[in-house]
This record gives sequence, structure tokens and C-alpha cells, in this order.
Amino acid sequence: MDTASEYAVQNLVAVRKNRPLVHSITNLVSINTVANALLAAGGAPVMAFAPEEVGEVAEHADALVLNTGTLTENRLKAMQIAGRRAASRGIPLAVDPVGAGISSFRTRALQEILTQLPVQVLRGNPSEILALRRKKTDMAGVDAVHSMEQARRAAVEVAAEFGITVAVTGPVDLVTDGRRALLVANGHPLLTRITGAGCTATAMIAMFLAVASEPLRSAASALAYFGLAAEMAAASTEAPGSFWIRLLDVLYAMTPAEFAEGCRITTASIDR
Amino acid sequence: MDTASEYAVQNLVAVRKNRPLVHSITNLVSINTVANALLAAGGAPVMAFAPEEVGEVAEHADALVLNTGTLTENRLKAMQIAGRRAASRGIPLAVDPVGAGISSFRTRALQEILTQLPVQVLRGNPSEILALRRKKTDMAGVDAVHSMEQARRAAVEVAAEFGITVAVTGPVDLVTDGRRALLVANGHPLLTRITGAGCTATAMIAMFLAVASEPLRSAASALAYFGLAAEMAAASTEAPGSFWIRLLDVLYAMTPAEFAEGCRITTASIDR
Amino acid sequence: MDTASEYAVQNLVAVRKNRPLVHSITNLVSINTVANALLAAGGAPVMAFAPEEVGEVAEHADALVLNTGTLTENRLKAMQIAGRRAASRGIPLAVDPVGAGISSFRTRALQEILTQLPVQVLRGNPSEILALRRKKTDMAGVDAVHSMEQARRAAVEVAAEFGITVAVTGPVDLVTDGRRALLVANGHPLLTRITGAGCTATAMIAMFLAVASEPLRSAASALAYFGLAAEMAAASTEAPGSFWIRLLDVLYAMTPAEFAEGCRITTASIDR
Repeated sequence: MDTASEYAVQNLVAVRKNRPLVHSITNLVSINTVANALLAAGGAPVMAFAPEEVGEVAEHADALVLNTGTLTENRLKAMQIAGRRAASRGIPLAVDPVGAGISSFRTRALQEILTQLPVQVLRGNPSEILALRRKKTDMAGVDAVHSMEQARRAAVEVAAEFGITVAVTGPVDLVTDGRRALLVANGHPLLTRITGAGCTATAMIAMFLAVASEPLRSAASALAYFGLAAEMAAASTEAPGSFWIRLLDVLYAMTPAEFAEGCRITTASIDR
Repeated sequence: MDTASEYAVQNLVAVRKNRPLVHSITNLVSINTVANALLAAGGAPVMAFAPEEVGEVAEHADALVLNTGTLTENRLKAMQIAGRRAASRGIPLAVDPVGAGISSFRTRALQEILTQLPVQVLRGNPSEILALRRKKTDMAGVDAVHSMEQARRAAVEVAAEFGITVAVTGPVDLVTDGRRALLVANGHPLLTRITGAGCTATAMIAMFLAVASEPLRSAASALAYFGLAAEMAAASTEAPGSFWIRLLDVLYAMTPAEFAEGCRITTASIDR
Repeated sequence: MDTASEYAVQNLVAVRKNRPLVHSITNLVSINTVANALLAAGGAPVMAFAPEEVGEVAEHADALVLNTGTLTENRLKAMQIAGRRAASRGIPLAVDPVGAGISSFRTRALQEILTQLPVQVLRGNPSEILALRRKKTDMAGVDAVHSMEQARRAAVEVAAEFGITVAVTGPVDLVTDGRRALLVANGHPLLTRITGAGCTATAMIAMFLAVASEPLRSAASALAYFGLAAEMAAASTEAPGSFWIRLLDVLYAMTPAEFAEGCRITTASIDR
């Protein structure tokens, strides 16, 4: 077992031991799936999103996730309140830029979040990461696919520009802090046929960050865990409904030994 | 294979080839189920509902669905904005009148939608279609059942009044444009024991309309596809939880040959 | 079969015969799960939450559930409108104090509900029930566990203070009206690994109350039914995703004979 896998396994073990409370201000499509995945994996979810209470809720959380799917003005306001509280407490903040580029409302909201809050990790699909660099992106739904190579270059740029860790997920995920990069080769194509897979991946990152100290390695660990769970789920089904439910099962049942065996994280060089 | 089945199969093949982007402004009970069903079937979902962005989102969509379940003032406002954009772009618009008759707020909202927007297909259960004709309906929940015969007469009237295609779903579905009618004999009683079955049927119609030119036949095609998927799902389970998940599986896995074999669309005469 | 079991079985039979319409104003994490569970069990769900229409909707309902998960100002306003209508019609009102103690907004909302509306049954986990008695509670997520003994004493106090029936759920559930108490020994630990289990239990209570006359026994009956369904679901799976789906299956498929056989309700004495 190499060092990256060792780190990843210890990170999972720490999650299950400490049951971090992950506060997610998230979209209403996958809110149920994300809560179920956090519970299955060993975390504790809290999904409050009213501006009236998110500050107090974030006060108790071990990590915060902001997800811009089905964004509304009120939920954006809640994100800013909770984000500032998370900042003042020093807990990790992960952002999922769902639909970046889909509307100026959403792109502007994400620019505010990235410039005003101490984001630790940003995870998106290629078109979302591209939208956060360039002003415009072609749109083919929230699950759009761009050239992975383009997106990787964009990830490095976005990471450097905002001083954060960026994960761009696809057949092979790239995680970079603008200077270093890790590749995660776990995952399965059925993840593109269920809703909320990306949202769940980002929640897993926040949960792993809550009990770890290195954002780059911890984000890669969470993606390897989630991707391996997808591979294991797909071993017993070939269709998306059953796959989704089996995925929740495996997030719960995967042992540290299975994770050590299946984890596929490698180091990559960055062309700049 | 008769002509109706041929049309239906080609419509499904076109969906899977073109992956239409279906924008759904829908209720918060079944929003996850609808997104999962669209993805499983081969479409691309986008579920944005904030008035601030739905206009821009609809700009990119291939079809629009408006669903009045758990309606709010804000979501109604978003429907009007997105509906006008869809109208100006000429993309198909399908409406699901969830809870028509349940409150004056909802019935009035539906009357506005039907009179102000260029609806292509309206799909509801018998009590909902009846509520849109008469001013009042008896209420027994959003899944209420009225006499199918009454509802069919109402469907013809509503279709003629608004110049649209109306589908009323039940043991056998009727699809009519006020002059012609098709019957769809696919389906399964377990559909009445899961939430969001009707909402999903309407989303399937929008997805089929996005790549077809005849609303009457395309709506029937979508209902046959969804109804056959329910029959196939029910072949391996007798209870609603497993049925729901198997239904998502079959929407993904059904082959054109299976659809051609199982599709049961026939022509009906209309008594006026 | 003892008297408590007989009562419980008759209560389930009455639910399935009468299909009560249960109006739930509930959180957006488990809204889909609760609707599916009500349908599977034999009830009819309506989940409307807009202040504009909840009064009219409650006018037709057989029971009302108010659930404070992901509470917003607007949903709280809707609860008050629907609650007053339920009160004037004399239909049962069940309350799920999700996240009591998590924020002053939520705790205050619950105090208003409990003092201003004729709540029949309140069901929560130990930390929620404790939060409604004392001004403060330690927080470890919305699924927090406190000493069951403390919580039982709190349940008796809250029941006596507000003149209602209180159910505190855990490994063994306690249901009390402040003078008498019942214990329900049905349930399974996997219920703590899926989201919405508590919300669903409360919806089951409302559905059982809709066709029964004794809140104490009826609440215990609903918890026994739901807990036994969990036991039966866990007999064929060991992981939370499959467990959730099997639970919906069993709510639908459980026979009165199976319920009579597995129901474990006993009388308890109250120390005051």
C-alpha cells in the first residue's frame, strides 16, 4: 500500500470514528441522496438552509458544504451567513458549483462565494470548472462534458487564482492546489446516470476534510472512496436505480481493507 | 408492428440519440425521482426554479415541463418567465396539473398557464382533468380517482377549449387533441403506490416531444414507454419500494425491440 | 394476542380500509420518503406547504403532520394556518420537532406550535424531547442520542406540561400522556442510518390517529407497525440503501397476521 492509499484509509477510519457533523446548504434535487450518503458513510448530516438559523447551525458543524444547484436568493443569503461563521471557526468549507455557467445569477453567486469565503476545496465537472475560469461556457445541461484536458488546465488556473484546492471529476479525477496534483482513477460510468452523484462526491470531500489536515490528499481520498464504492456497486447491477441504492449500501459496508485494496490515487505533474 | 408502435420506437431511439435537455419546474416531492427518470431514460435534466435564472436556463432547453405540485408564488412566477421564453423559442411545453382543484390558488394558477402559454400537452389524472373543466371537484388527495369515462369526456372538452393535446392517465390512458384520440393500454397498478409516477410520466412526454413533431402520437409514445417500463418492473417485484427502483432500471435498460414488442397504442373514436 | 396488539392490528386494518388523507407540512430532505411511505402503508399523502393554499388543503385532510426539519419562515406560517384549520375541524395533529434545540428559530417555532395549536401527539428523538423541556441541549446533529432515561423523564414532563401525548423513540420507544405510558420494543438500528426514519414514524402516527380515538394507544400502534416493518426489512438486507427500499416494500406488504405476531407493545409505570 502506497502513502496516498494509507492516508486515504486513515481518513476513512477517522470519519467513522468521529462521525463529523456536516452542514450542507444544498440543492433540492439531491438533498435526500446527500443526507442518506453522509449517514451511510458514517457522518452526521444537517441540511438547514433558512437564513434565520444557518449561522447557529454552522456554529456546531465540523464542516460546511455549499452547493449551488436549484439556487435561490434566500439560499445564497444563507450560504453567505453560514460561510462567514465557518470561516470564523476555521472549519473546512467545500463548494459544489452545480450549474456554473447555466445563468448569470449562478455564475455571479459562485464568484462571490469564491472571492469572499475561505473555500478549502471546490469540486465540479469539466464544464462547471471551465465556466468559473472563462466568462462563458457552452451548455448541455448540468451534467455537461467538456474535454477533460481543457478542464484540467482550467482546474490548475482556478486553484492558483483563488488559492484553493480544485477537483475536476470525470473518468479520472484530477485534484490540484495549483502546484501539486493527484489523479484518482476510481469511479464508474453509471455515476453519470443518477442525479446527485457529483453533489454526493462533494459532501464526501467535506466529511473527509472535517477529520483531516491536508486538503489536497483528503479531497483525493474522499473521491477514491466514493469512486470505489461506485465500482463495487456496479459489480452487482447494470442499471441506475439499483446502482444508486447499492451505492448507499457500499458506502456503509466498505471495509478499510477493501478501501486499501481498491484505492487508486497517483501523483501527476502539472504543465504550466 | 403497426404504425403507432413504429412511431413510438423511433421516438425513443431519437431521445437516446439526441439526449434532449428537459427543463422541469416541478414540485419538491418528486423532483429527485423526475431527474433520475430523465437521466435513466436517456435525457438530460435541469431543474432550476428561481425566477432570477429560469429565463436563461429555458433558453438552452429542448423542452419545458411545468408541474404544479407543492406550488408556491415564486415557483409560479418562474413558470411564467420560463414558459414565455419557451414560447418565443418554439420548444415544446408540457404541463402536469398536480392538485388541480385542491385549492383555488392552484386551480387559478393552472387556468393562467393554460390561457397564457402555448401548452402543447397537458397530462393529469381523472380528477385533475375534471377540475380544469368544471369549477369544482370532489377531493380525495392528489391521487384521486374519478370515473374514467367522465374524465375522458372532460379531456376532449379541455383539449378543444384550449387547442392542446390532453392525456388522462389511468388503467388505460387516453390521449386526445379534441378531434382524434389514442388509447395506451400499458401500465401497472403499482404506479398508484409510488409518489411521482404521474410527474415522471409528464416529464417523459416532454422528453419525447423534444425530438418529435406530432404531439398526439408523441405523448402516446411516451406514455406507452413509461407504462411498459412499469409492467416490466412489476415482473420482478410486487411491492412499491423495489418497484420504484426497478422502474428506473427498466427506463434505462429497455431496448427498442422490447418496446416494439410491448407497446400497446390503439386508435379510439371520440363521441362528441 | 393481548389487548394492545389487538388495538394496533385493528388500527392498521382501519387505515387500509379508509385510506386517510394525511396532510404533511414537512421538511425538504425527507418529503419524498414520507409521501412514499404513506402511499405504501395505505394512506393518501398531500404535501402542500404554501401559505396561499394550506388552509384549503387542510380542509379536506383526515390528519395533519407538522415537521420542523429545514424550517423556513414561510413554512412556519403555513403550519400555523393549517394547524388552526385542523383545530377548528377537530382532526388529529401530530408534530415532529426535527432539530429542536439546533437553533433558537426552530426551538421558538416549536414552542409556539405547542402552546397555540391543539397538538395530539409529539414524536421526537431523545435530544429533541429534551430540548423542548430545558432551554438548551448539547447538539450532535439532528440524529443526536441522549440518555434514554433522561429523555423518558422529559417526555413525561412535556406531556404533562402541554396536555399532549409524547413519544420518544430509540431502541425501545416510550409513549406517554403524562399519566400512563406504553413501551414499544419494535425497531432496528438501521433506522438510524437512513434519513427521514423519524419523519416517517411521525407520519405513520398521524395516519393511524386519523382512524382511531385513543391517541396514546394509536401512537404506540403506529410505532409498533413501523418498527416491525424495519425488523422485517432488515431480515433481508444489512445495509441502509436496500433497507430503506425494503422498508417501503414491507409497509405495503405486511399482513394483519404478521403485525399481530410481531407487535411488541407493553404497559410501563411512570415514576414521577
